[in-house]
Amino acid sequence: MKNVAVIGSGSWGTALAIILTKYDHQVKIWARSQAAVDEINSKHTNEKYLPGVTLPETLTATTDRAAALEGAEIVISAVPSRAVRQTMTDFAPYFKPGTVIVNVAKGLEDGSLLRLSQVIQECVPQCEVCVLSGPSHAEEVAREIPTTCLIASENEEVAKMVQKEFMNPKFRIYTSTDVIGVEMGAALKNVMALAAGMNDGLGFGDNSKAALMTRGIAEMKRLGIAMGGKAETFAGLSGIGDLIVTCTSMHSRNRRAGILLGQGKSLEETLAEVKMVVEGVNTVQAACHLAEKYHVDLPITQAINDVLFHGKDTQTAVLELMTREGKSE
Amino acid sequence: MKNVAVIGSGSWGTALAIILTKYDHQVKIWARSQAAVDEINSKHTNEKYLPGVTLPETLTATTDRAAALEGAEIVISAVPSRAVRQTMTDFAPYFKPGTVIVNVAKGLEDGSLLRLSQVIQECVPQCEVCVLSGPSHAEEVAREIPTTCLIASENEEVAKMVQKEFMNPKFRIYTSTDVIGVEMGAALKNVMALAAGMNDGLGFGDNSKAALMTRGIAEMKRLGIAMGGKAETFAGLSGIGDLIVTCTSMHSRNRRAGILLGQGKSLEETLAEVKMVVEGVNTVQAACHLAEKYHVDLPITQAINDVLFHGKDTQTAVLELMTREGKSE
Repeated sequence: MKNVAVIGSGSWGTALAIILTKYDHQVKIWARSQAAVDEINSKHTNEKYLPGVTLPETLTATTDRAAALEGAEIVISAVPSRAVRQTMTDFAPYFKPGTVIVNVAKGLEDGSLLRLSQVIQECVPQCEVCVLSGPSHAEEVAREIPTTCLIASENEEVAKMVQKEFMNPKFRIYTSTDVIGVEMGAALKNVMALAAGMNDGLGFGDNSKAALMTRGIAEMKRLGIAMGGKAETFAGLSGIGDLIVTCTSMHSRNRRAGILLGQGKSLEETLAEVKMVVEGVNTVQAACHLAEKYHVDLPITQAINDVLFHGKDTQTAVLELMTREGKSE
Repeated sequence: MKNVAVIGSGSWGTALAIILTKYDHQVKIWARSQAAVDEINSKHTNEKYLPGVTLPETLTATTDRAAALEGAEIVISAVPSRAVRQTMTDFAPYFKPGTVIVNVAKGLEDGSLLRLSQVIQECVPQCEVCVLSGPSHAEEVAREIPTTCLIASENEEVAKMVQKEFMNPKFRIYTSTDVIGVEMGAALKNVMALAAGMNDGLGFGDNSKAALMTRGIAEMKRLGIAMGGKAETFAGLSGIGDLIVTCTSMHSRNRRAGILLGQGKSLEETLAEVKMVVEGVNTVQAACHLAEKYHVDLPITQAINDVLFHGKDTQTAVLELMTREGKSE
């Protein structure tokens, strides 16, 4: 049994808090908004992010940073990519040295092009930062539908400790030391989900979506390897596994955003309709900059960037991707 | 423009005949049943296999083997795995030496454990045999929804010729020389689709299905490599691409069969309900024998074999696969 703090009351943070509480950990959620805290503490729900799910009564929330981290041995960072640096800077004074931080956000930092574990490590150099990824829609984890994830840390002992604490019969955890591969897979698959969603929104079929996803994982792997990640990571749970779930499930916000874009909605209309953060939209520009920096060709990512920010028509973009020249596979 | 014969009037053979006819080839279908031939020639439909699709009027069918192959430069073999040897033996006398045969069936031969291109080559040693695979539901190809496939031949010139002839704006073809990898991916993905369907039929989620598919492609690759295939083939269209489409699309008979099994139906009830050939059911035993022969561990394939032929409960099988021991990925 560990004392766990979850920073962020979105769907994934809340789902992890639920499953960890049910499997005997003492968990506190930190939320920015008093209304969210009150709802969790008094109604035991989080209707905006996990509609219809009842939270355990022993799971409590607070807006007080010091209270949230007090006694915490493991801290889950579950805020959107764009909020990671500010949130961790605000929390930095309250972290005990050696605390293990598990980042569960999936993205890249604009401008710096850093992976999120690097951002966190800069903010709280006194802590051990690791990463949780894999095919894991929050809605299913919250309902205890069997799920399998990966904990990645360069320090294998840290990964094993988190594995041991988080693992339960409904939540299987494997370990990895390839933090770069795991984080790049996590970030880039959201961009591919936008493309897969556009395919669906345009009324294209399962055949073309599978072809797009096959090229997508190849593209993710190319950039990941250029940055120092391992090829086999992209063939695993945090690579192809997470890509599959994000591109095919209706739970995926990135895919839903892609569907709306494919149906002809503007980016503004799409984001207004999805309501929650669509990480792929935030990641695509950073990914394009990384492609330049590492001299890697990312045609799908580039096409999505053109659609989102340079007025390219989705149908033209997807058809161009389908008909790119290429003689042998 | 080529003279093309299609042996078999199932959904895939008919869909290929349609798209090739529409893109200017002269195509004849050979069907076993006179009723099927009459329907194609007079009504221009194939309601059993492609309901709602209208066939081009210039696409004709015959039950006469000699007439079907007369003048054919490319012959597509589109009969179910279990019919390949008998059909090719019956057709053997009518093949001109050097004719290119494109096998599109996906499976393994019982008993001999041969890949289907090997079976065909044994029956008609005077011909060049190659293989077409990739994420390609017949229903979508027949409707000209963009699709991307792979032509594999040890003879690159043969692959390039078929690529050049079959390629059109709605049907993209890549080439490969890894016939073993392409055929093993094609055969084994149907077994994985049974497992994915069981996951769905049992009411498990997208997370667990993605995890199962991730382990599935790893398992397919292990056996494929042991047999002489290339790892990268399994990361491509005929590997992960075809696996994705077969495990996630409602068009997939193998997935539908898995769903029914997951819902508690017997194998007999399931096959009666799906009506068409479920190749995964025919492939699983041969795959288990290959696993023994090549000393490769195939836990998912073995579990499906236990469910289909040894009375194992589907829920137990899927849960055991989810909770297998494994510390690092």
